[in-house]
Amino acid sequence: MMLMIPGPTPVPEPVLLALAKHPIGHRSGDFASIMADVTSGLKWLHQTQHDVLILTASGTGAMEAGIINFLSPGDRVLVGSNGKFGERWAEVCDAYGLNTERVSAEWGKPLDPEQFRTLLEADTAKQIKAVIITHSETSTGVLNDLETINRYVKAHGALILVDAVTSLGAANVPVDAWALDVVASGSQKGYMLPPGLGFVSVSPKAWQAYATAKLPRYYLDLGKYRKDAAKNTTPFTPPVNMFFALQVALKLMQAEGLEPIFARHQRQMNATRAVMRSLGLPLYAADGAASPAITAVAPAGVDSEQIRSVMKKRFDIILAGGQDQLKGKIFRVGHLGFVSDRDILTAISALEAALQDLGYDGFTPGAGVSAAAQALTAA
Amino acid sequence: MMLMIPGPTPVPEPVLLALAKHPIGHRSGDFASIMADVTSGLKWLHQTQHDVLILTASGTGAMEAGIINFLSPGDRVLVGSNGKFGERWAEVCDAYGLNTERVSAEWGKPLDPEQFRTLLEADTAKQIKAVIITHSETSTGVLNDLETINRYVKAHGALILVDAVTSLGAANVPVDAWALDVVASGSQKGYMLPPGLGFVSVSPKAWQAYATAKLPRYYLDLGKYRKDAAKNTTPFTPPVNMFFALQVALKLMQAEGLEPIFARHQRQMNATRAVMRSLGLPLYAADGAASPAITAVAPAGVDSEQIRSVMKKRFDIILAGGQDQLKGKIFRVGHLGFVSDRDILTAISALEAALQDLGYDGFTPGAGVSAAAQALTAA
Repeated sequence: MMLMIPGPTPVPEPVLLALAKHPIGHRSGDFASIMADVTSGLKWLHQTQHDVLILTASGTGAMEAGIINFLSPGDRVLVGSNGKFGERWAEVCDAYGLNTERVSAEWGKPLDPEQFRTLLEADTAKQIKAVIITHSETSTGVLNDLETINRYVKAHGALILVDAVTSLGAANVPVDAWALDVVASGSQKGYMLPPGLGFVSVSPKAWQAYATAKLPRYYLDLGKYRKDAAKNTTPFTPPVNMFFALQVALKLMQAEGLEPIFARHQRQMNATRAVMRSLGLPLYAADGAASPAITAVAPAGVDSEQIRSVMKKRFDIILAGGQDQLKGKIFRVGHLGFVSDRDILTAISALEAALQDLGYDGFTPGAGVSAAAQALTAA
Repeated sequence: MMLMIPGPTPVPEPVLLALAKHPIGHRSGDFASIMADVTSGLKWLHQTQHDVLILTASGTGAMEAGIINFLSPGDRVLVGSNGKFGERWAEVCDAYGLNTERVSAEWGKPLDPEQFRTLLEADTAKQIKAVIITHSETSTGVLNDLETINRYVKAHGALILVDAVTSLGAANVPVDAWALDVVASGSQKGYMLPPGLGFVSVSPKAWQAYATAKLPRYYLDLGKYRKDAAKNTTPFTPPVNMFFALQVALKLMQAEGLEPIFARHQRQMNATRAVMRSLGLPLYAADGAASPAITAVAPAGVDSEQIRSVMKKRFDIILAGGQDQLKGKIFRVGHLGFVSDRDILTAISALEAALQDLGYDGFTPGAGVSAAAQALTAA
């Protein structure tokens, strides 16, 4: 099975083999060494000198921790909502009794930074405590303009809490340079790991907010993780096999280098988008707002669920469908994490075959592969 | 490295190899089949017809979910506290603003069911909403008398919420026969898996309480897991590789059978306790209150940390130390999950060698191994 979905993403063999090692005790010196090593690797990946904490949780668990540790009931928060995940963080805020204000854009369109600027500038009483942004909106393939929105947040003084689940390790997320207060991510994305670990970076300013934040928490209490991380341990039993795998994956990432990783994702995104144009398949996100992790396509004249079905049956290649209101309307190609140029060519060749199989005649056979080859070479 | 700690516990090779399989998509039919199969296996293990839900979390995360989904702020709860984990659940209740009443016993002693009876009978206004019991107190090796306490809870009508993290799969925990409302556990214990998954069984009566319970939750909201489990899926990305492994581990458990599994743990507990007596090493828990998962020993005349250190250095066998107030005062031998009689003999032989190495002369060399052999045969 070949995964071309935005998570779980493909996992390199050395990482898989690390998972099959016998567990070790998590209160041992051996585990402490691994914890120290992966923490250092995570700081490199996040481009931060500050804390990056590791949770046994999905990306949603990590992001919830990133919200509830820094706020109190009734706090006013702005939540960018232009897809399933932005909407999910608004639901988390609602569940915890925050004063949630959705700043929405149509699905498939990026959030408008100017809307945030207007709201933040009008808030002279500084009642807005945090702004929550989904960087790469996995459900639509849109990359929101975090850098610009963050600039307005900085001018105001609120915390910026970022869902970087499908952007970290794919796009530049320079935590310290942008002074991002909280950045949440999950292992089954850019990390090239199976699902099972969540990560949260926390700025010194966020820790100041933590000191007075009153939302209840225990398992997701980041203060406990911070305290124990200082001793290279964890407050609750960590998934030690996933730590073995994380250590290997971070070494692979460090060997490749941050800039080459970002360039690879950019190149594969460009190639995938060039392909869809050459096949006459409309891209769901516009050029300036496309995620380097995932390309969403809204085909006309051919059914996206049928494309996915043929791709799976004939070639054992898994594409993602649309979620919630987009079910049946789009398909999504993941090019995130451990994806090679060869994988892109493979998927595109199969996509052409599937389209021909389905009688779709909106393209010249070979056009997609040719466009991919050209785009992959150009970069 | 040989793990004789109460988690992570040893993992069989077929389970480890399942971990190294390439992930599959969690929104696929293939994953749904696995989900259906493991859910059925979990119901078998829990001896229940009702829900058993699977979380990406440690045992603490599972137990927190088991508490916060069924209660509202200010609810009065009784929490059995006679070790680190009982105390932890009281801390969770405090963190969420419950009216927490600790029912304590000295560490190393079991909870007194009569104390619960008195409090429950006095509560004619039915203000006590839940009673929280740690079945096997991992920190002390004490097995609390869940069956008796539960009988008093049933007479009262409150919910019974059980930490079965180190008892499920080691001792009999018949969820439906005892009408246990919530039973929480974790993968790195009796399940013979690495850490990374938490499990929570939920009774129909607990779901009634859920309907009006007001503590905030999102990632740990069990209603979401229940709703999606009905469609053989999960609300948040599950650790698919751990599901592969869980499927294999449950098959191994089913092949062995529940009664033989409980008998094996009982036999190994008896053997370990007989050994300590023969070596003149005082057992920390009394005979009638000993956990089948773990034996705590409070040695006199020889230092427990030195024993652990020699066991590790010379034989690469890992024993657990004491936690919190018991640090340096006890060592703990785990005999939980994938442990064979051979493992017990191995550990005991090494323990004798370590004791001799440390100049401890409170025993006749060979007495421990002989006692173990006898006890393992007798059963």
